[in-house]
Amino acid sequence: MAESAAIDWDKAFAGRAEGMRASEIRELLKLLEQPDIISFAGGIPDPALFPSDVLRSAFATILSDPELGPKSLQYSVSEGYLPLRRWIAERMTSTGAPCEVENVIITAGSQQGLDFIGKLFLSPRDTALVTAPTYLGALQAFNAYEPRYDVLRLEDGKRTPDAYREAAAAAGGRVALSYVVTEFANPTGESLSLAARQRLLDLAAEIDIPVVEDAAYEALRFEGEALPSCLGLDIARTGSIERSRVIYCGTFSKTIAPGLRVGFVCAARNLVQKLVLAKQAADLHSATLNQIVMHQVVEAIYDRQIPKLVAAYGKRRDAMLAALARHMPEGVSWTRPQGGMFIFLTLPVGFDGAELLAQSLKQVRIAFVPGSAFFADGSGANSIRLNYSLQSEATIEEGIARLGRLIAGNLAAARAA
Amino acid sequence: MAESAAIDWDKAFAGRAEGMRASEIRELLKLLEQPDIISFAGGIPDPALFPSDVLRSAFATILSDPELGPKSLQYSVSEGYLPLRRWIAERMTSTGAPCEVENVIITAGSQQGLDFIGKLFLSPRDTALVTAPTYLGALQAFNAYEPRYDVLRLEDGKRTPDAYREAAAAAGGRVALSYVVTEFANPTGESLSLAARQRLLDLAAEIDIPVVEDAAYEALRFEGEALPSCLGLDIARTGSIERSRVIYCGTFSKTIAPGLRVGFVCAARNLVQKLVLAKQAADLHSATLNQIVMHQVVEAIYDRQIPKLVAAYGKRRDAMLAALARHMPEGVSWTRPQGGMFIFLTLPVGFDGAELLAQSLKQVRIAFVPGSAFFADGSGANSIRLNYSLQSEATIEEGIARLGRLIAGNLAAARAA
Repeated sequence: MAESAAIDWDKAFAGRAEGMRASEIRELLKLLEQPDIISFAGGIPDPALFPSDVLRSAFATILSDPELGPKSLQYSVSEGYLPLRRWIAERMTSTGAPCEVENVIITAGSQQGLDFIGKLFLSPRDTALVTAPTYLGALQAFNAYEPRYDVLRLEDGKRTPDAYREAAAAAGGRVALSYVVTEFANPTGESLSLAARQRLLDLAAEIDIPVVEDAAYEALRFEGEALPSCLGLDIARTGSIERSRVIYCGTFSKTIAPGLRVGFVCAARNLVQKLVLAKQAADLHSATLNQIVMHQVVEAIYDRQIPKLVAAYGKRRDAMLAALARHMPEGVSWTRPQGGMFIFLTLPVGFDGAELLAQSLKQVRIAFVPGSAFFADGSGANSIRLNYSLQSEATIEEGIARLGRLIAGNLAAARAA
Repeated sequence: MAESAAIDWDKAFAGRAEGMRASEIRELLKLLEQPDIISFAGGIPDPALFPSDVLRSAFATILSDPELGPKSLQYSVSEGYLPLRRWIAERMTSTGAPCEVENVIITAGSQQGLDFIGKLFLSPRDTALVTAPTYLGALQAFNAYEPRYDVLRLEDGKRTPDAYREAAAAAGGRVALSYVVTEFANPTGESLSLAARQRLLDLAAEIDIPVVEDAAYEALRFEGEALPSCLGLDIARTGSIERSRVIYCGTFSKTIAPGLRVGFVCAARNLVQKLVLAKQAADLHSATLNQIVMHQVVEAIYDRQIPKLVAAYGKRRDAMLAALARHMPEGVSWTRPQGGMFIFLTLPVGFDGAELLAQSLKQVRIAFVPGSAFFADGSGANSIRLNYSLQSEATIEEGIARLGRLIAGNLAAARAA
C-alpha cells in the first residue's frame, strides 16, 4: 500500500481556482440572521409577493397530469422546455427584440448564463469590460476564467476603442467581451441612457466583441418610459438577432421566484447552440418540472404579477428615498432609481463602507453591503448599497434613521478631530 | 453609428470553446423519437418507477407550509439545504464513508459536480486519467477545460506512476486527476474489483492526484455483495475524509427522479469549500424547493424505493442477457453487470458501431449507442452500448432478436464476401 499522505488541495488545483475566493462580504452577511438586525444587505425579493398559490396549484396540476407528470420528473433536453422558450421568444419579440424559439436557452437563473458566457469567451488575461461598480456575481462568474477587467466608460467619449485594445494587449490578451446591467443595475439602481446604449453598441462593434446585457431587473420599472434594450437596439441596427452581438440574460428570479432557478439567454442561434453544449456539459439541463411550472405560471399571471411587484417595491423605494432625505447628513449622496431593488450611497471621502458596516452592526444593528465589493479595481470604498425590496416602509424609515444618525455621528467626530 | 457587421462567434470564442462540440451521437439520438423504434440508446430511468405520488404529496405539503413554503421559493445558500446534506452525510457514514455535513455540497445532478471538478483541477494540456471506455458526460464536462486524456489501467501492473507522469509532462502539463465510475459503470455495466480500487488509490497517492469517484449507479445492485467505495477505502487508509484524496459524486437521478436535478459531492471540507465557491459563481445554488422535496422524499421512502428499482431493472437485465444468449451470433461478446442500466457488446473486429446503428435504424428500427463515443482516444469502434432500464422484458426480447438477426446477417455477408 502506498503512503497515505493527505492531499494538498491548494497544490492540486488548476491556476484558475486561485481567482475563486470567498467574498468577505458574503461571508459576513451569513452572520446576519439575528432577528434584531434590520437588513438592507440582500438583493432578494419579498417572499410575501411570490405568487405562491398559483405556483402550488401549477405543481399539483402538472404532477397529477398523466402525460406531463412523468415527463416533468424525467431527463429533458439541454436547451430547455419548448413551450417556455416559445413564451420567452414571444415576450422578447413583443418588447422590441424580435426573435424565434431557437434564440432562447433556459439556464439556472441568469447567473448560469454569465458562467457559460465566461467559459465561452474568456481566456486567461483576456479583458472583460465592466462598469464600475458592477454586479458582484458577474465578477465571480467571470473570475473562474482568469480575465483582467477594464472599466467600461459610456458617459463620455474619452476612451477610444484603441485605448481599450492596447491596454488589453499590454496585459497579454484581447478585449473579449463587455458586460452591463442595462436597467436598474445592481448595485446602483441606475439605467443606461439611450445615448450610452448606442455608445456601447458602437464601441462593441468597433472592437468587435459581444455585449452581455444583464436584464435581471428590467421588468421592475416604477416610473418613466422603458428604453429599448441593447439587444433590441442592435437588432434594429443589424436587421436581425442572427447578426446581433448582444447576448441578453434574463431571469424569473425577480418576478416569479428565485428558488426555482429558471432564467434564460436570448441571442443569435449560432451562439445559443454553443450555450446548449455548455449547458449539456455543465448540468445536462435545468430541472424539468421547474421549467414546466414556470411556463404555466408566466402564461397565467405574468402580466398581473408585474404591476403588483412594481406597486410594492415602488412604495418601498419612495420610503427609502424620503427617509434618506430626512436622515442623511450633508455630504452623503445617493442614486434615485426608477426601478429595481437598490439605492447606492456615496459617503464623504475618507469613509470606508466595510468599516461602517462593522460599526453599524455593532452599534445600530443595520446591515448593508459595502460598495467596494462591486468594483473590479477595488475602488469605491466610500460607498454602500442599500436594498429596499425586503423591508416594510416603516422598517425602512426606522433603519435609515438609525443609519443616518450613525453616519452623522461619524462626520461630527471627524470634524471635531 | 458604427458599422453593423455581424459578429463572427467562432472568432470571438476563447480557445476552450473549441473542445465543446456537439456529440454526433446525441444529435443522432434526438431523431429517434418515432414511436416504432425500440430504443436501447438512452441511459434513463423508467418513469413508471418514479415515486410520483410521494413526490406530488411532498411538493404540496412543502408549498402549503407557512414556513417552508416561502423559504422553498426563495434564494438559498450555495452549499445546499442543510437537512438534505445531513441525510446524505448520515447515509454516506452508514455505508462505509464516515463524514460530516460539512463534507457535502448539493449539485445539479452529479454532472455538475464533474463540471466543477474539471474547473478546479484541469488546466489546458493537463492530463485526466480515465478508463477506456468511460462516461461520455464526464469527457464532455472536462473537455471545456482542455485536458489531454490518458488511459487509466487498473487491471495490470504495466503502467507505472512515472510512465503517466512522463507522458503528461511530454504533453505539456501534469497529471491532474483520475476519474472512475466505480460500480456498474456507464457504458460497460462493470464494477471495479477490490484489487483495482486499491491499485487506483495506490496510483493516485503515488502521483498525488485526486480520485474522482462517480457513484451514479451504485445503489442499483441486483446481486453480489457491495464492495467499499473508493472513498470508504481511502478513509480507512488515511484515517479521515479530511485526509482523503477521493471526491465522491452522487446523485438522486437514478434512484428518485432525474428531472429534479439533485445530486451531491462528498469530500474533504477544504475541497467542499472550494466547490461551494464554484457553485456560487456558476448558478448561486440548486433549486431550493427541489432540495427540500428531495429531503422529505428520501427521508420517507429511500429504503423502500431501492428494492423496487432493483427488482424491476434486475429482471430487465436478466431478460436482455437471456435474449443476447439466444439471439447473438458467435463472435459477439458482452458484459454481465451485477447492477446499473447497461450491457456493453463487443462485435467482431471490423464491425463499426456507428455504421451498425445507421443500418439498424433503417432496417430493424432498433436504437443503441455506438461504443466509440465512450473512448477518449476514439477507439472502440466495434462496440455498442445497450440500455435495459426503459423497456419491458417482452420488448427487450423482441429488440435483441431483431438486432441479433441484423448482426448475424452482416457476419454471413462478410464471410461470403
